[in-house]
Amino acid sequence: MTTSMRSPAKIAVIGLGSMGYGMARNILKAGHETWGADINAARVEALQAEGAAATALAEAAPTLDAVVTVVLNAAQTEAVLFGEDGIVPRLRKGAVVVACATVAPDFARQMEARCAEAGVLFLDAPISGGAVRAASGELSVMASGSADAFAAARPVLDATSATVFELGDSAGAGSAMKAVNQLLAGTHIAAMAEAMTFGMTQGVSPELFMKVIPQCAGASWMIENRGPHIVDADYTPRSTVDIWPKDLGIVMDIARSAKFGAPLTAAALQQFLAASGSGLGAEDDAAVAKVYARNAGIKLPGDA
Amino acid sequence: MTTSMRSPAKIAVIGLGSMGYGMARNILKAGHETWGADINAARVEALQAEGAAATALAEAAPTLDAVVTVVLNAAQTEAVLFGEDGIVPRLRKGAVVVACATVAPDFARQMEARCAEAGVLFLDAPISGGAVRAASGELSVMASGSADAFAAARPVLDATSATVFELGDSAGAGSAMKAVNQLLAGTHIAAMAEAMTFGMTQGVSPELFMKVIPQCAGASWMIENRGPHIVDADYTPRSTVDIWPKDLGIVMDIARSAKFGAPLTAAALQQFLAASGSGLGAEDDAAVAKVYARNAGIKLPGDA
Repeated sequence: MTTSMRSPAKIAVIGLGSMGYGMARNILKAGHETWGADINAARVEALQAEGAAATALAEAAPTLDAVVTVVLNAAQTEAVLFGEDGIVPRLRKGAVVVACATVAPDFARQMEARCAEAGVLFLDAPISGGAVRAASGELSVMASGSADAFAAARPVLDATSATVFELGDSAGAGSAMKAVNQLLAGTHIAAMAEAMTFGMTQGVSPELFMKVIPQCAGASWMIENRGPHIVDADYTPRSTVDIWPKDLGIVMDIARSAKFGAPLTAAALQQFLAASGSGLGAEDDAAVAKVYARNAGIKLPGDA
Repeated sequence: MTTSMRSPAKIAVIGLGSMGYGMARNILKAGHETWGADINAARVEALQAEGAAATALAEAAPTLDAVVTVVLNAAQTEAVLFGEDGIVPRLRKGAVVVACATVAPDFARQMEARCAEAGVLFLDAPISGGAVRAASGELSVMASGSADAFAAARPVLDATSATVFELGDSAGAGSAMKAVNQLLAGTHIAAMAEAMTFGMTQGVSPELFMKVIPQCAGASWMIENRGPHIVDADYTPRSTVDIWPKDLGIVMDIARSAKFGAPLTAAALQQFLAASGSGLGAEDDAAVAKVYARNAGIKLPGDA
């Protein structure tokens, strides 16, 4: 009576933003019976138009195999799992929650324990890769949880991800690695913006910067990924400025709890706050370069 | 009467530290008549034992084709070129100075102009790659200068370098790109140390960090190059902590002159100053992680 991992599962995705919607579509494409939920009803209807179940999630809950939470933060994760109308109390025993938001490791451990009280499995599964890879089903997942949680989450992971890092047998390790990665990713974006605009004050054009630096010791993944956005003056949001006050804020909260001083992260956070505060929050995160350019009185590519 | 670029040239290397000595050896191996100069006579004698000319540099100066300066900074570069016993006034017209120290672009332009007054060519040629690549003849050179300066410097570049970025037709552009690269390289080392030790407070071991992060958006060249030093507790200096107060200091000097605020670089500089000030200056620059570990009360690999 074992269920093949390839047989269709019943899966709900809560949070249909740019990440969650892409994941839900890929779960749907993989042949699973899929429910979507979002505070924005239009997103739910759009997913239904692509084939998602039209029945109420509340009614379907006891039949679900997996619930994927792709909401903004810890508060929203807790609300959708355990708040008023939270889904965990309605789930069957052995169903799994796949929690994808960037949260503190301690919070992930709390959620795992509270799910366990309800007989529900929990996979600490923050995701990385941005909306483009969410859409293509090629996310990276920094996951930790019990072997049962991994097994139950397998249809979700298979449908949405290219790489699953299995980081430990209980919640917390996944979120810890995600926080480490976000610390670096955010800091490297700000460093890229700082270096590129600094170079402009010395006659190094963004184009020349992108020709030389990726071949040198100053290279980073973020330079190669975000640098072209500045060269092309293309701030179409693939990942927004506003991700970083949130994610670097989480990193700084964790760091403060651990009495860990993180001066570079703190400086990067300030630059993203300045970007967000000056109205750039919904632009691509490479727009943090505009803060530097404004402060230095220089014009970026595309500036009048 | 053109001289083939492959015919032996007469070349002096001033400054026989870990970078300069490796370059001088490779110039020697390429078959050029080579002079070495250093305040440490033992370094000069060691080079002579490997085949460098034993005649006095002062006497040889009028016959030299190229002088390579591989000293610590702008002050030493100016001293060896134009100070008491400076070499430029003794050089023949058409000889070239290949200036490898990390300096401000304005300083490089000044040196080019003063060399020109003496009929001497100048290549702004800061180097990158560390002592290992200096020894193997595989440096990267961020070079700018006239076509004549590049042509005259060719035997030096060919003998010492794997990659020569030709960044412009006058001095300054090379040093500008070097400063940009050093901003990023130093900041990325400090960010790596910050992220790795932050991770340790959350249960992410340095080994696990190195397995996961190089495959993620937080990746950098410095993580892949310096991270293993921390995992292996190997602080044998390939590039020392003390490089960074110097090079990030130069970046911050240039930035201040340009009224450019560089908050991440400033934060990284403070961490390297703390490393140097607490006695780690001669260790490998990955030892900046020890500052974070000490401040957070955590033990790095190899700590008792």
